Amino acid sequence: MPRIDGARLISDLRRLAEFGRYETGVDRPTYSEADLASRHWLAGKFAEAGLDPLIDGIGNVFGRADRATRRLLVGSHSETQPKGGWLDGALGVVYALELARSFAADPELKGLGIECVAWADEEGHYGNMLGSRSFTGRLDDNEIDAAHNREGESLRAALARAGFAGRPRVAVEASRYLGYLEAHIEQGDTLDSQGLRIGVVEGIVGIWNWNVAFTGEQNHAGTTQMARRKDAGVAMVRLATQIHDRFAEVAGPRSVWTIGRMTLDPNAPSVVPGRAEMLVQARDLDPAILARFREALVQLAAAADRVGPCRCSVEERSQTEARPMDQKFEAAIEAAAERHAPGLHLRMPSGAGHDAQVISHKLRAGMMFIPSLNGVSHHWSEDTREEDIVLGAQVFADAAAAILKAG
Amino acid sequence: MPRIDGARLISDLRRLAEFGRYETGVDRPTYSEADLASRHWLAGKFAEAGLDPLIDGIGNVFGRADRATRRLLVGSHSETQPKGGWLDGALGVVYALELARSFAADPELKGLGIECVAWADEEGHYGNMLGSRSFTGRLDDNEIDAAHNREGESLRAALARAGFAGRPRVAVEASRYLGYLEAHIEQGDTLDSQGLRIGVVEGIVGIWNWNVAFTGEQNHAGTTQMARRKDAGVAMVRLATQIHDRFAEVAGPRSVWTIGRMTLDPNAPSVVPGRAEMLVQARDLDPAILARFREALVQLAAAADRVGPCRCSVEERSQTEARPMDQKFEAAIEAAAERHAPGLHLRMPSGAGHDAQVISHKLRAGMMFIPSLNGVSHHWSEDTREEDIVLGAQVFADAAAAILKAG
Repeated sequence: MPRIDGARLISDLRRLAEFGRYETGVDRPTYSEADLASRHWLAGKFAEAGLDPLIDGIGNVFGRADRATRRLLVGSHSETQPKGGWLDGALGVVYALELARSFAADPELKGLGIECVAWADEEGHYGNMLGSRSFTGRLDDNEIDAAHNREGESLRAALARAGFAGRPRVAVEASRYLGYLEAHIEQGDTLDSQGLRIGVVEGIVGIWNWNVAFTGEQNHAGTTQMARRKDAGVAMVRLATQIHDRFAEVAGPRSVWTIGRMTLDPNAPSVVPGRAEMLVQARDLDPAILARFREALVQLAAAADRVGPCRCSVEERSQTEARPMDQKFEAAIEAAAERHAPGLHLRMPSGAGHDAQVISHKLRAGMMFIPSLNGVSHHWSEDTREEDIVLGAQVFADAAAAILKAG
Repeated sequence: MPRIDGARLISDLRRLAEFGRYETGVDRPTYSEADLASRHWLAGKFAEAGLDPLIDGIGNVFGRADRATRRLLVGSHSETQPKGGWLDGALGVVYALELARSFAADPELKGLGIECVAWADEEGHYGNMLGSRSFTGRLDDNEIDAAHNREGESLRAALARAGFAGRPRVAVEASRYLGYLEAHIEQGDTLDSQGLRIGVVEGIVGIWNWNVAFTGEQNHAGTTQMARRKDAGVAMVRLATQIHDRFAEVAGPRSVWTIGRMTLDPNAPSVVPGRAEMLVQARDLDPAILARFREALVQLAAAADRVGPCRCSVEERSQTEARPMDQKFEAAIEAAAERHAPGLHLRMPSGAGHDAQVISHKLRAGMMFIPSLNGVSHHWSEDTREEDIVLGAQVFADAAAAILKAG
């Protein structure tokens, strides 16, 4: 079995966190100077580990193991959220590096190759999971032409600035790999709050989004009597309240739902709102539960529209399907977890999106979580205990070795 | 009794609407080129009517009647809302002009003077009722120094550009007037929907505003289980729903209340809102009813705070007091309305704010409404039938004559 070097692992994670350091976290948006420097540093570390480094036309950093006879692709993304955490993404990339090194050092694992990857822009600064979608043939040139970040820089300009324009984008060769493994911090507190150390990811939840729009009549808030108002804001808060009550009734044990965005138009203190919109989101591994949410929402909105005085309509905005992980990979991760942390692991869904869900369309895929302290995520204060980081790497390495040996 | 010239009145209203014409309405923000041109045009019309014209240091346009022995100050504001209506404000100014002309033409009314005024910035482009507040000593230089419009132009710069900087601001001499009269379109549909022609304003409602803030915990909408969420958006929509239900129970027959502004923070589809705020507004002539609204709001918010999981707090933002109009002026307007439109007039509060509420702190004040077609206001399509405009002027002139004769 491979032997993880915990000190080396932590040291490399701390070094990577220096690129774009912000407080105790990292501010390293995709294609920023800090992000580009970190990608070149990673390419160098992959080379040191005996891999062939390659940065492709979308900024994905590969460490290729051409001489291996069996291979797993292992990695995560390396950019961060604005003022984000030091482990979100970076953990999975440095785990891959450490696995490659520990496999190379073990004569018993000869011929079993860990290929490393640091995906570009999972965090969506310019697009949605650009790197893994490029790799799996799910990102076309038209989308690249149209994409830009919040500051208005086009993706094309960013790639040119980075020196990546004109390079080929590496596409997956499915026959090259037994599959794909990704480790990540949990980003929730399910593990941390129960003192657990490893999460065996069963799948990545489907995310369904609906836009609910209300049309009333904009009017003067002083001169318009209550009886003749058509207040779109009133209609929205009443329906939102009903949705929260009804969704709790139809939910599964792991379902989550959120109304994260609401807008009133014109949103002025002395104007009766003429229009209102809210975005309703639900997540679950089970498409049948998501369908129950949709049915409940459509029924409530139709009833609101019927009762009036405002019109109410529901529009399906986006729908990502739940992606189950490979059951053999799950079993390998679970067995390794039981060996190193007996009884302290849990099968669980991932409520957040990950590159693994994209890769799973082309390769068998598996994911492993380690705890996030207090569940904090997408904030510079995100953190995980060093002993959990090191234990997780060992579990992950054992699982990878078992998968590669089984073939 | 004075005789209104309906054709002359309509012609002057149409001419004034040419300054900043937009569709069938007017776009004439305070101190815009169109507004300044219209103020100079009004000064000229006041002079033609035999009055002494004067534009003061805040842009108020006066037509003074120095030789009269008794005087009423009569007018309204002359700027408009952005893309606003042609009668909002302008009607009351041109009524004043027509009253001055008809009084001057009637030997029986000798010595009874109508002084005209076109207030500056009732609509609040740079401040809140700047002109009438300046006239009544309620606008100090510090506020003028700090004020600016939405485009960022300072009030000082606008006054300099207009050529008004350095001119004295005219202050009210209470002994000079029997009182102040203002005519205005209703801006609601109370008169129009019932086929009524004159509104006798009993007072201008008090407006109380509260800011209600909710503090929860911002979290990832995918990884945060429902049971541990503190969703400030959920807390807000639940309380807003309760407020609408409870306020309907404690309201008076003419009360109105509005939640016109709501904000979620960070207002992103995939983030559990950590903070939320809404502005609750109530209007009524009766301070006791407004106090009932406040009590209901404070109780509901305290209960929400107690139940949790979010904190909820109420902050009083602003409170304008209701301003009753002078009862003798009301009686004069009502008697004139009964003479010209028997049975087609109504005593009513003004739900909107007007310069008359400011002036009422220094002078006896009265207000009269004419119908707004379909209650449309603050939109270029606002309109009133010509026969209602002409009838309103005659009622207003008769009322002014009766007040001046009674002395």
